[in-house]
Amino acid sequence: MSDPVLARLQADREGIVARLVEYASAPSVSTDPAYLDGMKAARDILKSRLKSAGFSAVQELQAGGHPAVYAEWLGAPGKPTFIVYGHYDVQPPDPLELWKSPPFAPEIHDHRLYGRGVSDDKGPVSIAIETLSAFLAVEGRLPVNIRLLIEGEEEVGSATLGAILEKHRDLLSADAVISADGARWRADLASINVGSRGSMRLEIAMRTAAKDLHSGRFGGAVRNALHEMAALLSSLHHPDGSIAVEGYVDDVAPLDDGERKRIAAIPFDEAGFFEAIGASAHGEPGYSALERLWHRPTIEINGMWGGYQGAGSKTVTPAESFAKLTTRLAPGQDPARAGALIEQHLRRHCPEGVALTVDRNDPGTAAYTVPADHPLLEAAEDALETALGKPPVRVRIGGTLPLSDIVRHALRLDTVMMSFSTADEDFHAPNEFFRLSAIDDGVKAWVAFLRLLGRQTPETYPPFRQSR
Amino acid sequence: MSDPVLARLQADREGIVARLVEYASAPSVSTDPAYLDGMKAARDILKSRLKSAGFSAVQELQAGGHPAVYAEWLGAPGKPTFIVYGHYDVQPPDPLELWKSPPFAPEIHDHRLYGRGVSDDKGPVSIAIETLSAFLAVEGRLPVNIRLLIEGEEEVGSATLGAILEKHRDLLSADAVISADGARWRADLASINVGSRGSMRLEIAMRTAAKDLHSGRFGGAVRNALHEMAALLSSLHHPDGSIAVEGYVDDVAPLDDGERKRIAAIPFDEAGFFEAIGASAHGEPGYSALERLWHRPTIEINGMWGGYQGAGSKTVTPAESFAKLTTRLAPGQDPARAGALIEQHLRRHCPEGVALTVDRNDPGTAAYTVPADHPLLEAAEDALETALGKPPVRVRIGGTLPLSDIVRHALRLDTVMMSFSTADEDFHAPNEFFRLSAIDDGVKAWVAFLRLLGRQTPETYPPFRQSR
Repeated sequence: MSDPVLARLQADREGIVARLVEYASAPSVSTDPAYLDGMKAARDILKSRLKSAGFSAVQELQAGGHPAVYAEWLGAPGKPTFIVYGHYDVQPPDPLELWKSPPFAPEIHDHRLYGRGVSDDKGPVSIAIETLSAFLAVEGRLPVNIRLLIEGEEEVGSATLGAILEKHRDLLSADAVISADGARWRADLASINVGSRGSMRLEIAMRTAAKDLHSGRFGGAVRNALHEMAALLSSLHHPDGSIAVEGYVDDVAPLDDGERKRIAAIPFDEAGFFEAIGASAHGEPGYSALERLWHRPTIEINGMWGGYQGAGSKTVTPAESFAKLTTRLAPGQDPARAGALIEQHLRRHCPEGVALTVDRNDPGTAAYTVPADHPLLEAAEDALETALGKPPVRVRIGGTLPLSDIVRHALRLDTVMMSFSTADEDFHAPNEFFRLSAIDDGVKAWVAFLRLLGRQTPETYPPFRQSR
Repeated sequence: MSDPVLARLQADREGIVARLVEYASAPSVSTDPAYLDGMKAARDILKSRLKSAGFSAVQELQAGGHPAVYAEWLGAPGKPTFIVYGHYDVQPPDPLELWKSPPFAPEIHDHRLYGRGVSDDKGPVSIAIETLSAFLAVEGRLPVNIRLLIEGEEEVGSATLGAILEKHRDLLSADAVISADGARWRADLASINVGSRGSMRLEIAMRTAAKDLHSGRFGGAVRNALHEMAALLSSLHHPDGSIAVEGYVDDVAPLDDGERKRIAAIPFDEAGFFEAIGASAHGEPGYSALERLWHRPTIEINGMWGGYQGAGSKTVTPAESFAKLTTRLAPGQDPARAGALIEQHLRRHCPEGVALTVDRNDPGTAAYTVPADHPLLEAAEDALETALGKPPVRVRIGGTLPLSDIVRHALRLDTVMMSFSTADEDFHAPNEFFRLSAIDDGVKAWVAFLRLLGRQTPETYPPFRQSR
């Protein structure tokens, strides 16, 4: 007999898609102040829907940055309480000219919804909210207590999320966190994420003269800020792709043989993986591609610029140059120490006579690993097996879920990911899309997951709250 | 007794400045098609003024690029004929935000006129045109025959100037060329330019993947186009500033001891030179700053970019990167060979799996040196001594005057520079300015120069046309 909550969700699929389209039309780019109105629009949509669905205490939680949206349903005394996490902010849509449809007017083509943020993270968050709303509509209650926390700063490193958690501890008492963010690895493999790399961003600027100079009048007798930036940035890596920053990989937890064998056993078409993106494999020698992505750190230049970029040419010797960097931190690395090592390296490689500015205001996020025997992880695996018909493979993501590190520090809670985006959906790139089939899988899994959690007894799963 | 032509010019100084302001208000940026209207406006001003002054055959000469403005006065049979050269195009005004006054609405502050192109080359060209016009107004004739040629592509390497000269040989028969372009070295030293470096531009692009990638999902396992560009560009130089391109300096004419001693004897405050621009000395070891600027080649990155440059951060692994380069060529270097050597170097240093595009459509311009005993050079020196009260020192410029190389090839004529801009006037940078005192020096020198040329006899100077 079909589950009545699931049946309602399946019958209302068109409505679910229409509401996602409306939600994804709000241009909620957190990194750029030009989009403040879009941020507010996304929050307003969330608050209005959560109120209508029957959630209480719907409000914005603020700690100096973009507010998070909070809502709760606590009508299941004796049952466990979970924070369900997601984010309403999205990446910038640049470069706009590469989009085939408008980033903030989502369009469906070939069973995929195209638009900025549809996969990261508005689609997956919508699946969670739609499922919870359906429980409330059909049964008038949820199987467990839920505190929804949809933040607005995930794409800028969750800058004030820690402060929000500290400030609103009373609202956020729970047993564990379920994240609706964190992509499924592949469309062709049932998997569950058990960890993520950390991240930290830096910006650097170099100045070689008081002003831009004529390349004829000065060229050859003074430093050029672009030459200096090229040399400095190229010093960060060895030609083989390994990181050249002294001591940088020393703290990384070594991969043991058991884990390497487990990773090697995961079905993975490495050639196809690189072919799909038109790139060739390149990276730290001695590691497979999956090992590099899941267990090794990076230092990536995300943007680099200086001098004349317009049409034609300009014979200038530029005095200034700029770069934006992020690092992905591997398990074992401390963000503050990693940042200090990068800055030391940059200063050591910056020649005299060049002014170097290193902005590392970002405290960063450490890598996270959910304990292998955590009962919430086991329940999630059971739910996915029920929904998808096969047990999921445990995988990691190369990306970052700042939340898991932040809640571990602030609330001492663990986080399990239950997201239905897929990692190939071009989030952070033009033409981001979301497979509409993820809605079908997602609502099945979420219904099963919530029912399993509601039936928790010492015989099914140990208590979800782990002392750590 | 004062010269009546000079007296008229001195009496009309306000008019000269006002006409220069109007001329410099035309935004004639040759490199950017957005400024086509400004290019036409500058030509229209020139043509209208030359017609009113009494020049004949006023017209535009075209060979597929921006037209040159031509005008002639040939009423002095038996006297020599000179091409007077200048350019009406200007550099782009970017970065606009660094200008203290609008680049195309020139303003006078502290006896300096500020605006794009006022020094390079609209001010100096105006001095020549104003002097010639004053001769025609006061005396009804010029001392010699003059063909004015004001081109529109100097700031983009005089791309079609050679073709214009070939196509209009009939209009351009002359004994030698006088250039109103090519800056005076310093405000505190009377000097004359006897040579310039050549130049050539290249653009390069690198691609590492079919699209920009998420730095979490792919970072560490694929190449990053910005890392590759940084490594490639930094391979062009050794850390000491010398060029690392194999064979690049082999063809450069060696500096003989006599020339090195002559350069060392020129009064030059090297510390002050670098202090004025807030930079420190840096360049090829074994050479003084002046030797580097006048006799050694450069490879300069004029622009470099890729990835995200907006506010905040974007965790992208960029798939594309770009750079604009120019080289200044020393005497002895062939532009085609120099371009081939750079491309070979770039291809040799580009790793497999990275698509490298090298655009070197620019044929480039070789360095130029006016023969040391050229009679036109001697006449120019005499005129400058008369106007300024002391003999000028022979210097070179580190910049490029494509004209001199082009007319040497196309018309077999030599070029002498008689320009009154000064090299510190921030052409090619924000807040370009022109010292109004240059107008006073300039009209004196041009009047003296034209009178000396008109009095040429075998006793004063040998014939100006040299067979080469």
